[in-house]
Amino acid sequence: MQLEKKPIEDIQARKDYRNISIDRVGVCDLKIPLNIKGCETDSGKGQSVQASLSLSVNLGPDQKGIHMSRLLETALDFNGSFSLENMASFLTALRDRQNSEDSDVKIEFDYFFNRHAPVSGKISPQPYKCAYNGQMHSDGILLTQSVVVPVKTLCPCSKEISDYGAHNQRSKVFISVNHEKKKEHQAIDICLEEIIEIAERGGSSPLYPLLKREDERHVTMSAYNKPCFVEDVVRNIASDLQENPNFDSYELRVLNYESIHSHNAFATIGKRSPTT
Amino acid sequence: MQLEKKPIEDIQARKDYRNISIDRVGVCDLKIPLNIKGCETDSGKGQSVQASLSLSVNLGPDQKGIHMSRLLETALDFNGSFSLENMASFLTALRDRQNSEDSDVKIEFDYFFNRHAPVSGKISPQPYKCAYNGQMHSDGILLTQSVVVPVKTLCPCSKEISDYGAHNQRSKVFISVNHEKKKEHQAIDICLEEIIEIAERGGSSPLYPLLKREDERHVTMSAYNKPCFVEDVVRNIASDLQENPNFDSYELRVLNYESIHSHNAFATIGKRSPTT
Amino acid sequence: MQLEKKPIEDIQARKDYRNISIDRVGVCDLKIPLNIKGCETDSGKGQSVQASLSLSVNLGPDQKGIHMSRLLETALDFNGSFSLENMASFLTALRDRQNSEDSDVKIEFDYFFNRHAPVSGKISPQPYKCAYNGQMHSDGILLTQSVVVPVKTLCPCSKEISDYGAHNQRSKVFISVNHEKKKEHQAIDICLEEIIEIAERGGSSPLYPLLKREDERHVTMSAYNKPCFVEDVVRNIASDLQENPNFDSYELRVLNYESIHSHNAFATIGKRSPTT
Amino acid sequence: MQLEKKPIEDIQARKDYRNISIDRVGVCDLKIPLNIKGCETDSGKGQSVQASLSLSVNLGPDQKGIHMSRLLETALDFNGSFSLENMASFLTALRDRQNSEDSDVKIEFDYFFNRHAPVSGKISPQPYKCAYNGQMHSDGILLTQSVVVPVKTLCPCSKEISDYGAHNQRSKVFISVNHEKKKEHQAIDICLEEIIEIAERGGSSPLYPLLKREDERHVTMSAYNKPCFVEDVVRNIASDLQENPNFDSYELRVLNYESIHSHNAFATIGKRSPTT
Repeated sequence: MQLEKKPIEDIQARKDYRNISIDRVGVCDLKIPLNIKGCETDSGKGQSVQASLSLSVNLGPDQKGIHMSRLLETALDFNGSFSLENMASFLTALRDRQNSEDSDVKIEFDYFFNRHAPVSGKISPQPYKCAYNGQMHSDGILLTQSVVVPVKTLCPCSKEISDYGAHNQRSKVFISVNHEKKKEHQAIDICLEEIIEIAERGGSSPLYPLLKREDERHVTMSAYNKPCFVEDVVRNIASDLQENPNFDSYELRVLNYESIHSHNAFATIGKRSPTT
Repeated sequence: MQLEKKPIEDIQARKDYRNISIDRVGVCDLKIPLNIKGCETDSGKGQSVQASLSLSVNLGPDQKGIHMSRLLETALDFNGSFSLENMASFLTALRDRQNSEDSDVKIEFDYFFNRHAPVSGKISPQPYKCAYNGQMHSDGILLTQSVVVPVKTLCPCSKEISDYGAHNQRSKVFISVNHEKKKEHQAIDICLEEIIEIAERGGSSPLYPLLKREDERHVTMSAYNKPCFVEDVVRNIASDLQENPNFDSYELRVLNYESIHSHNAFATIGKRSPTT
Repeated sequence: MQLEKKPIEDIQARKDYRNISIDRVGVCDLKIPLNIKGCETDSGKGQSVQASLSLSVNLGPDQKGIHMSRLLETALDFNGSFSLENMASFLTALRDRQNSEDSDVKIEFDYFFNRHAPVSGKISPQPYKCAYNGQMHSDGILLTQSVVVPVKTLCPCSKEISDYGAHNQRSKVFISVNHEKKKEHQAIDICLEEIIEIAERGGSSPLYPLLKREDERHVTMSAYNKPCFVEDVVRNIASDLQENPNFDSYELRVLNYESIHSHNAFATIGKRSPTT
Repeated sequence: MQLEKKPIEDIQARKDYRNISIDRVGVCDLKIPLNIKGCETDSGKGQSVQASLSLSVNLGPDQKGIHMSRLLETALDFNGSFSLENMASFLTALRDRQNSEDSDVKIEFDYFFNRHAPVSGKISPQPYKCAYNGQMHSDGILLTQSVVVPVKTLCPCSKEISDYGAHNQRSKVFISVNHEKKKEHQAIDICLEEIIEIAERGGSSPLYPLLKREDERHVTMSAYNKPCFVEDVVRNIASDLQENPNFDSYELRVLNYESIHSHNAFATIGKRSPTT
């Protein structure tokens, strides 16, 4: 079988006559092992993660297609080491290899931070779904850090109207913070762990992988002492973010897996800028 | 373009020489609108559901393939009306159109039962994931009814060790009950709603779509008065099923979406027969 | 046990002092059985679906919480019958029962349209994930119809560079069309099935639940005769939508489940208005 | 607030009077970072993965509950390094800390193996979903290795009946191989990569993350030259496994994401032993 002899034309480089530009073309759900730095401001050496990537560029109205395999080659050239600080050079490399004007990268990964049980002090690693997004346009680069933080919420209404007890549940906080018009190697002044801690302060209690009996007592009573509606969580976190000068804007969503219903409750705040 | 003229051979009917029989071949994730009866014992006319079907047969060692499109045709011939009572004739039709010995049907669907809020009496429809499975072998038919029932669980340890409050959460109960060697049109003496009610009695409290303030007070305090470990839920339900003469065996799994952890807790009882 | 006697205060109506408004608060993942009209312009009586609802309103800076149970009561009052034509009155009812300015409804459901196999003419029901979204603001109502349409795509590059064959795969088209500042009972001039047919024309071939051998021959050869990159699909559909005067703007995403990779390819066009 | 002073009873150790034993109780969906060895037989140092664990034991009829936090402590004591060789000591530790007879561990993780593009030789890492399962009973230990391998399948019927082209798609192969009554530190004579390669030989073509144009030509034509029904894939792989003396039994499932339908096709072979 002769499989390799035919001269091979570059179909993607052909001209397209429909005169329709495309905002983003690329690959997604591309899993690769990476080293990620969760905190730019610390001296840490990062963490081995198994990331899912979305890599794309814009396509002008007169070219038939992009060269998908070059997106992967560009990612593999970076040799598995990513941070917000080298995002700009990655975006530039992606864009230049396609002769595009814009490029867009989303890196989603689980990041583990150690949590100390509140009484016993026992340490266990808690995973957080995180994402870095970089978008390069003619007028600069937009960087976004996103985290999903599970917390406990205890219902203020249930507590108030009942002689004892209060329904509570697992909730999820989704926070994105945006940094506009960043330059290459420019430091980001907030790290994933700081954003996570803002989220954890916003609910009735943080979650922990490992809790001994004295810790469970503490978490139970602490949550009872700090009841939060889904509206309260979103406001607690927004209050904290409003005072934070280390990013340009934020977006916020809280989801309660209600323990008295099989549907969920939510609250969202769209793109908003800190007041400082 | 002449697309339709070639004489078309039946490739699937060719002989296979590898001498390997296949236990199940067919289609799955096939969505169709159906009318399903959730209760064979009532006089009800069933419910319009959007079901996902798995339809398969065995394949002997010397035939290359089955005729997949006939599986769909058989399902469409039944005209969208399914119950446990006509499962046997459906299994027979599937098997006979493939010249197979065995056939296997799984129908998964959401079924809604009305729930009455415990104090206000307000009515709202609650969805339950359900499944009917039928397996036809040379020695008879095995029918299985499965339900997934969300309940509330309140932790007995958290209640006992804390001065006030107790962590609680949404949990899911997975129950399957099996009916062995059933014949066509033979009635099944337990319906989906009865199994669901057994599950709901097993936790700290049922869930309800619609609760007014006085109902929320009731659910909160009722759950606090009936704390259940995941082990307790599985045992409460098993106790109930053990006394039930209306099926041949059952399987049971309970999953707690722990509100103090981001991981889950579970307990399972494998295939077990009632003691009656 | 005396569970029902305590006088019950309206906690949600209390004043909040953090001065933070919330864009959306409500419930989501609420499943209810509905009758949905997929085509406003036809005389059809709609379809029984099992929908998932998101219902929310805005919350001003000085009120502690909304009354979640009223969202459900409002939905249940509509008695299970929804269309784009009565969306405005539903949005008004939601908003007024919370004393809010804005309200937002998303209804997601599977809708079945019959597909005729291209040669045999055999009819089978194909499910499409659809959504209706309504957003009420002070300056009017925005209605959005969304569909997810599976199609087949065959790679033009693979066809061109190979002596025979071409890789092809299942793809998904996501289209949303927006209707701005609609009034109550104002007709929508495009129906779900029309949008689905625009999507199906954009790929190498539509999909069908039931295909006999002569149909499979037709689909295979038709797709080979109409190769499409992910870029081509997005442009084919955008060309069609650009000429369509029956909505105000559209958004478009195509996803290819590449059969030569375990990652996916995609192309998107953000909010764009027709040129007519 | 004085949260820590109450003397704390061991509720779980209380007696239960329902006389119902539980087959498995424990935690699941527990994510931790691990070092995993994919090949016991090579000299490799393993791979950093982000695993999801299920850890459970049986519970006798007269004890109220297990001590969930000890399951985590046992996992954390192993310090993040797992292989099939130390599974026995992990199972023993889990069982002994709960005074149980049985223990059960499931570790699910993505493992990356490098793939060489067939013509250009370009190297890229491909992820495979893998799992190790260990079950300790009074009569010994059962170890299971599982992999999910994406492959390409090209339909023999579509090829045969069409003048040109053939529909093809992404498929998934699920293989488990079982090792019965293993002892601690006893070597396993087959590694994940060997099982993956058996799966990849069974379809029309393997998948690759990175393919240049000459590779795409090769994959397209190779797949066209090796058409496979879902039945053929399951038989190709079973033939290979039947001759393999390095495990005691296997289970097999193949799923085709049909590119001409929106439903899927599947074939399964239940637990079967090699003939050697």
